[in-house]
Amino acid sequence: MEVRTMLGSSLLFFRIVESVGQGVTEFTEGDHVLTVFIGECGKCRQCTSGKSNICEVLGLERRGVMHCDQRTRFSINGEPIYHYCAVSSFSEYTVVHSGCAVKISSVVPLEKVCLLSCGVAAGLGAAWNVADISNGSSVVIFGLGTVGLSVAQGAKLRGASQIIGVDTNPEKGENAKAFGITAFINPHDSKDPIQQVIKNLTDGGADYSFECIGDTGMVTTALQACCDGWGLTVTLGVPKVKPEVTAHYGIFLTGRTLKGSLFGGWKPKSDLPSLVDMYTKKEIQVDEYITHNLPFEDVNKAFNLMREGKCLRCVIHMAK
Amino acid sequence: MEVRTMLGSSLLFFRIVESVGQGVTEFTEGDHVLTVFIGECGKCRQCTSGKSNICEVLGLERRGVMHCDQRTRFSINGEPIYHYCAVSSFSEYTVVHSGCAVKISSVVPLEKVCLLSCGVAAGLGAAWNVADISNGSSVVIFGLGTVGLSVAQGAKLRGASQIIGVDTNPEKGENAKAFGITAFINPHDSKDPIQQVIKNLTDGGADYSFECIGDTGMVTTALQACCDGWGLTVTLGVPKVKPEVTAHYGIFLTGRTLKGSLFGGWKPKSDLPSLVDMYTKKEIQVDEYITHNLPFEDVNKAFNLMREGKCLRCVIHMAK
Repeated sequence: MEVRTMLGSSLLFFRIVESVGQGVTEFTEGDHVLTVFIGECGKCRQCTSGKSNICEVLGLERRGVMHCDQRTRFSINGEPIYHYCAVSSFSEYTVVHSGCAVKISSVVPLEKVCLLSCGVAAGLGAAWNVADISNGSSVVIFGLGTVGLSVAQGAKLRGASQIIGVDTNPEKGENAKAFGITAFINPHDSKDPIQQVIKNLTDGGADYSFECIGDTGMVTTALQACCDGWGLTVTLGVPKVKPEVTAHYGIFLTGRTLKGSLFGGWKPKSDLPSLVDMYTKKEIQVDEYITHNLPFEDVNKAFNLMREGKCLRCVIHMAK
Repeated sequence: MEVRTMLGSSLLFFRIVESVGQGVTEFTEGDHVLTVFIGECGKCRQCTSGKSNICEVLGLERRGVMHCDQRTRFSINGEPIYHYCAVSSFSEYTVVHSGCAVKISSVVPLEKVCLLSCGVAAGLGAAWNVADISNGSSVVIFGLGTVGLSVAQGAKLRGASQIIGVDTNPEKGENAKAFGITAFINPHDSKDPIQQVIKNLTDGGADYSFECIGDTGMVTTALQACCDGWGLTVTLGVPKVKPEVTAHYGIFLTGRTLKGSLFGGWKPKSDLPSLVDMYTKKEIQVDEYITHNLPFEDVNKAFNLMREGKCLRCVIHMAK
């Protein structure tokens, strides 16, 4: 059950259906779809649970091949080219499992809602589905990229009274306020350990902390920045270096909780259409995270902007 | 605000009030009280939160002195003797903060309900308050001492369908069934890693796992024994050796949660009387955890029984 899609005027993670494979009935040629890195088969223990988006069949389709026959759908001169993260975005045409494609309205702007296929949805979902932030609470966010700033937006919409953003890049502070950040801290500007600064600002520790960097050491700091009793730390990042999270047992014994979040807990096919609806009703910000638009030939420039911390999201446009 | 108590016919953690200090109005001479290692001031951010038992004033009164004046109430020949864990149990008379004493009915058997001051309450609360185990779920418990077997009782009373007990002491298996354990695993009997054995028994991982040993390495195993998506690990133990909990970030990213539990989340003064009520109504088992009764002069024998894994709870009786 697979879907062959064509890139429209633009973009990563947004596609127009070009043709469908055998057994696929929910899509037809011309449908607009978001393609997603985790899928939803709709039938496994996880999909039917009502409490998880970690599909057993299409959960993390990182194996470079299609699930059904363990083969790739791409080749160059007979040599196989492997799929990447289920979506294989960097090509004009791709083939994805139908469980990794989400049909959406054809009137929404393609080059904007593509951000709901990953970063923005991941942040909003971490705030709403995973942490379930309550009104009037204090929140601290480590890392103010698109994911962290989407957590901030989610916290703001839930009525959090304090939303503290932490980043070592001083330029992140200004833009962050537009997404709900009420205070910005650059750890380089402080003599005290950052967790102590946050404890001082929040009467003993924040209600919620979010690690949006991909640094397991910062997960420990995020736990320490939370309050005793009910402090909840959510880790969203994928670390580049040390894969182990380490924390003193006393952190947990005094009432803290550590939770992971993959794609904000959204079941992609069940839940993304409602997020797209919220976007069209202007209930959530999405456009504001797009700082750059570049043609595909400049894709490496886009990676550099990201590495240098000079962009939030950069949408890649294929040539028409 | 302190209470001087006298040991009755027996026991650790159970006392009869001998006299009260200035300002104490809730106790009078002759009251039966449970004394507890964490207190409840009733006024701090934690006590008034409705979601925490980590009292900011009397949370972990391990400093060896009374909170109000930082002095000890014990001495021998003018030399100070320090308090221990707020209750200072190994003496005929003790002095505790009024926030660490819980008045209970004088008709309940003193030498039984003393177990609700710590181990049994800690296990029941971990199952009910912290994990909030749901009907029909699968539970795995690492360590089948009194705490682990109280988690088992809590899980059974919540209607868990699978309650797997893990212990390296083969003798723990038989007794465990009386407390709700449905399957016993001795890791020494298995070639496969214990987390794999549990995954096989539970269709991919348990809904809940509990670390009741005090081994941070086993917290990692407990996380691995849980299922993707909603697996919840509760750590209750205080480790003797390595204080750091370590786990691969992927464990969390795929939907697991790690939570700590201190005294099962019970606010001692607010909640313990209702547990004592449940005991008198025979809704919970307590007597069954008492395997030995020893006079105070044999207290070291009691410690040896514990170290050798030959007892569950041993009640120490003072000479009359």
